Order: sequence, then structure tokens, then C-alpha cells
Amino acid sequence: MTANRQIVLADLPKGKLAPENFRLTETERGSPGEGEVLLKILYVSLDAANRAWMQGATYRSALQAGDVMAGGALAEVIDSKSDRLAVGDLVFADTGWQEYAVLPAKRLAKVPRIEPLTHLLSVYGVAGLTAYFGLLECGAPKACETVVVSAAAGSVGSLVGQIAKLKGCRVVGIAGGAAKCQLLKDRFGFDEAVDYKAGDLRKALKAACPDGIDVYFDNVGGDVLEACLFGMNTHGRIACCGAVSQYDGAAPAYGPRGVPGLIVTKRLTLRGFIVSDFDDKRDQAMKNLQAWVASGQLKVQEDVLEGLESLPGALIGLLAGENVGKRMVRVA
Amino acid sequence: MTANRQIVLADLPKGKLAPENFRLTETERGSPGEGEVLLKILYVSLDAANRAWMQGATYRSALQAGDVMAGGALAEVIDSKSDRLAVGDLVFADTGWQEYAVLPAKRLAKVPRIEPLTHLLSVYGVAGLTAYFGLLECGAPKACETVVVSAAAGSVGSLVGQIAKLKGCRVVGIAGGAAKCQLLKDRFGFDEAVDYKAGDLRKALKAACPDGIDVYFDNVGGDVLEACLFGMNTHGRIACCGAVSQYDGAAPAYGPRGVPGLIVTKRLTLRGFIVSDFDDKRDQAMKNLQAWVASGQLKVQEDVLEGLESLPGALIGLLAGENVGKRMVRVA
Repeated sequence: MTANRQIVLADLPKGKLAPENFRLTETERGSPGEGEVLLKILYVSLDAANRAWMQGATYRSALQAGDVMAGGALAEVIDSKSDRLAVGDLVFADTGWQEYAVLPAKRLAKVPRIEPLTHLLSVYGVAGLTAYFGLLECGAPKACETVVVSAAAGSVGSLVGQIAKLKGCRVVGIAGGAAKCQLLKDRFGFDEAVDYKAGDLRKALKAACPDGIDVYFDNVGGDVLEACLFGMNTHGRIACCGAVSQYDGAAPAYGPRGVPGLIVTKRLTLRGFIVSDFDDKRDQAMKNLQAWVASGQLKVQEDVLEGLESLPGALIGLLAGENVGKRMVRVA
Repeated sequence: MTANRQIVLADLPKGKLAPENFRLTETERGSPGEGEVLLKILYVSLDAANRAWMQGATYRSALQAGDVMAGGALAEVIDSKSDRLAVGDLVFADTGWQEYAVLPAKRLAKVPRIEPLTHLLSVYGVAGLTAYFGLLECGAPKACETVVVSAAAGSVGSLVGQIAKLKGCRVVGIAGGAAKCQLLKDRFGFDEAVDYKAGDLRKALKAACPDGIDVYFDNVGGDVLEACLFGMNTHGRIACCGAVSQYDGAAPAYGPRGVPGLIVTKRLTLRGFIVSDFDDKRDQAMKNLQAWVASGQLKVQEDVLEGLESLPGALIGLLAGENVGKRMVRVA
């Protein structure tokens, strides 16, 4: 009998997420029944949304105390009782934070074996497709327009900025701290970077965007969204991707000022999305992303930590903004 | 020399708008220079936006103390020094609150002489086109979807609900007080009406919309927008038309909860608009509106007050929700 180590959400956090909210347990690995496969988890993806799932129902049901912590992962089929998947196939699935999982094959999406495998969680995974669809479908930037993205040094933001540059836009990133801001310009080719921790954000944005903001890709919500609303141009578009500033605590008491007043007077469009809304355009997106990576036009930044037990700290750190690029944990 | 009575914005309101913020003055009528026309104002349109113009710049510059109070009006050309317009032509223009105005002809939109002339300010004016474009272009409802509209007994709301019924939707109106709610069902054919003054709005909306809300036409912002956000279905659309709950006071301190969290998780689209965004589709809209009125499918409700001096009270009352249908003042 093979053991399966798991990280369980011991209780739901009342305020900030802490290591004490998790515990490591061990169970049996299990074996697949008819139509099921046994998966070995290779890399677990860390995402701000993991924390949102503890606040309540989102596009998935809320997490409960005692659940194996949920999370997307790249996993390999090591035993199969389904003709949909064979041993050796790779899948991306919400396996949760554990070493092995038994899941129904029909709920799993097979992914091609592209090296390095970590790219299947970053540029060719949810992060890359989120950046691609959110920017191009919801933001719909035209060449020479100004695109602003928050959490710009994160997994999604760093790709949003680079794709916007590929489309001929002027790109301004918002990130926390001078080091990240420098990186945005030096490594990812952003035109300007604004440190939201450095003082008056509205004023800094105005200086960085002398022609106003045409597209804002919002990863953070809260005060940063508010500052961008005030800087938007008429007929501007806001792609609502997430609200990481709002996840690590109780549900927010208020929304940003300017809603709906500025939406009306500036005739803005705010559009929320998740990647699966664009499944019909996924193949074309993957082709474009692969071409851009191959040509060196898209730089992929990854932040890979080691070992199942590092997962709680990895998520807590991500919520505090300590990562640059796509954070994941190698489990096997 | 003919006199021209005017109502001047004596000072900008600090809190609620009051009669003391206005004063009646008298000046000379003036005569048109080259390229100008002299207008006799027939009917002045009362709009919630009139109050918003006192808060700051919107899609027009802010009003200042001492300005003739701004406002759209139906007016007749009584003298012309332009070959664009002839004596007897009707125009709709921001003439301000006065009996006569001299304006450059090239800034004026000629309107056809359709009887009754009051319809040029209601169903064939900004109110009708706002309802039409906001609902059909921004809300884009499909048959059998649930459409909710706030300020539903107002000039725009009563038309939004009826057009949505014409498109085969289930229609729920939000209005203040039992009398207005009854009228929505009895006269305008709404399926349900919710009195926002009667208690727990979120709960009442849930009862009135058992299948959730697919399209929300927002005239009011604030708590009503927040309640609707929580009731929206996945991929729902919110047409952001105005925020009358927020105009009669200082600028609001906060926006609704659920922004951007619910926009993301429910993948909502919020879109602000004003009528002139759809000028290219105006002719078709007018044809449809005229056909619906002629066939009796669209009932037009108007609230016509008499005399220039009644304008301040008419606006103050409109902001307090005392009107049903399109409010205007007959000046001449």
C-alpha cells in the first residue's frame, strides 16, 4: 500500500491566511475504478484564486474546513481504467494539494507533452491563456493605445504586458516595490512601471500615462482599480481578471468609488472572464503563444519551489506579492 | 427690445439641491449674428443628469455658479442668419433654462415636426433613444431572459421595460412606493415590480427573479446596483445609464460591494453609454420607436409642468422621484 501525503485546509482563515490553517496528513493512494485514472502530481500551480475559494462560492463551490486544499496541477497518468487516457499521458486538473489523486477520466483535460513541463503551468497554462484572452478579447487594445496592467510582475501580468507590446501598445505596469518595477522595464520591455507602494497612485499613473488609459487589465481590484477608473479614457475597457488585494481577509466592505458614475460618464466597459469562457479559441491561442515563445518575443518567468510541504508558505507568500512570474511547487 | 427671462444657478449646492440655489433674472433677447439662429424655447427637458453636471465634469464640463442653468430643450427657430436652418424649424439643443437663446446653427440638430411635440422630448428624444440603445446594444437581452430596470416608472425605465417585453423577456421593475409598482404592472405590462423602499431589496429581487437576472438596466447606482450585482446570472450584462441615487449630494464615498469580485466570478459585463455613442443607428431606432408607438405596443407617459419659473421645483422633485414618465416644462 503506497502512502499519499496531502495538505488539508484545517480551518477557514478568519483574517490573513497563515500556516496554521493547513495541516499535512497521510492517507492511502487508492486505485482507479471503472472510468477512472490514478494520477501522480508533478507540479501544483499557486494562484491568488486559491485564497478566494476560501471566502465563498465563486465559479466553483467554496472550500470547507477539512477539505484537501484545492489547486490546479500538472499530473501524469500512472494507472488507467479508461480508454480516454493512457499511462504516461499528462493532464491539468484540480487535483488538490497531494501526491496522488484518483479522478474520473472524463473530467480531465489531456495536455501535450511540451518541454519544459513547467511551461504547461505558466505560459501554456491558465496564466498564459488568461493573459491572452483577457487582454485580446476583453481589453481589445489597438496599436498605440495605452495598456495598464496591475500585479504586473506576476504570472499573468508579465505576459499581459508583453503581449500588449507585441500588439504595438504603450504598456505601463503597476507592481509593488522598486525592484519589480525595474524588472518590468528591463526584462519584460514595459514602457513605464508604477510602484503602488510608493505614494499617490493616481498622480503616478497620470504621469506614466500622459494620454490616459485605454485598457486596464485588473488583477487586484480595490484602490488600484479605483485609481485606474479615474485615469481611464472615454470608451476605455477594463478586463476584470481578479481581485487579489481583496482575497486575504474578510469579504470587502465597499467597492471602488467611481462605480457606476465614471463607467457612465466615460462610457467604460468592464468585463469579467475566466479562461474557460474562451475554450473555442484555445487552439489558436496556444499556437500564437508557442510562436511568440519560440521567437523570443515572449519571455517566460517562473518561480518553482520544491516539495509538497512548501505549498502553504508558497500561497501565503504569493498573496503578499513575494513572487515574480508564475509560482508553482514541484511535488514529484 | 424683447425681454428674455432666465433661471441662473445662483450657487452650487453643497448637499441636496434647493430652490435657493436658483434665481430668476431678466436680460435682453439678443439677435443672431452670421451663422447663428434665434431660438424660442418651447419645452425644457428635466433629467437627473442636470444635477450631476453640478458635481463636476462629466461628458460635458461642470456647471459654475452664475451660469444660466443648463438643460436640453425643444426650441423653434424664429430668426436665422444661417442657411442650415430656417424660421419654423424645430431643434433639440442644450439651450439652458430661458425663454430665448442665440446659438450657432452648426451645433444644432434639426428634429422633424412630429405631433404631439412633447414626444420629441420623451419617446423620440433622449429618453426613448437611451432606453432603446442601452437595452438593446448594452443589455442585448434574448427572449425569455430576465431583465431588471431601476427607476422603472421614470422616463427611461418605463420604456426599457416595455421594449424588453416586446423582445419576449420577463421584466421586473424597481421603483419607489406601492403606487408606482402597481402602475408598472397595470399600465406598462411589467411582470413584477419591486418597491426598493419596502425593505430587504436583495431578498425581494430574489423572489421576483427566481431564475436570476440576465440583464440589469441601471439608472440609479448605489445600493440598488449592489443588490442587482448579487442577483446577476453568469454572463449577465449591466447597462450603466446613470446613478440618480448618487447625484443629489456630495460625490459618493464608496462604490458597491461586489466590484470587481462578482464581475469576475460571474463574468459580468458592465457598460456605460450615452445616446450619442449610437448616432449611426439613430434612424433605425426612430423608425422602430415610431412603429411601436403607432401600434400601441409602447405606451408613452409624460409629466408636463407649466412655466419657466416651475423649473427649479421640477428638477428637485424629479431627484426625489416624484414624477412618473418623462418630466418636462412648457416654457412657451
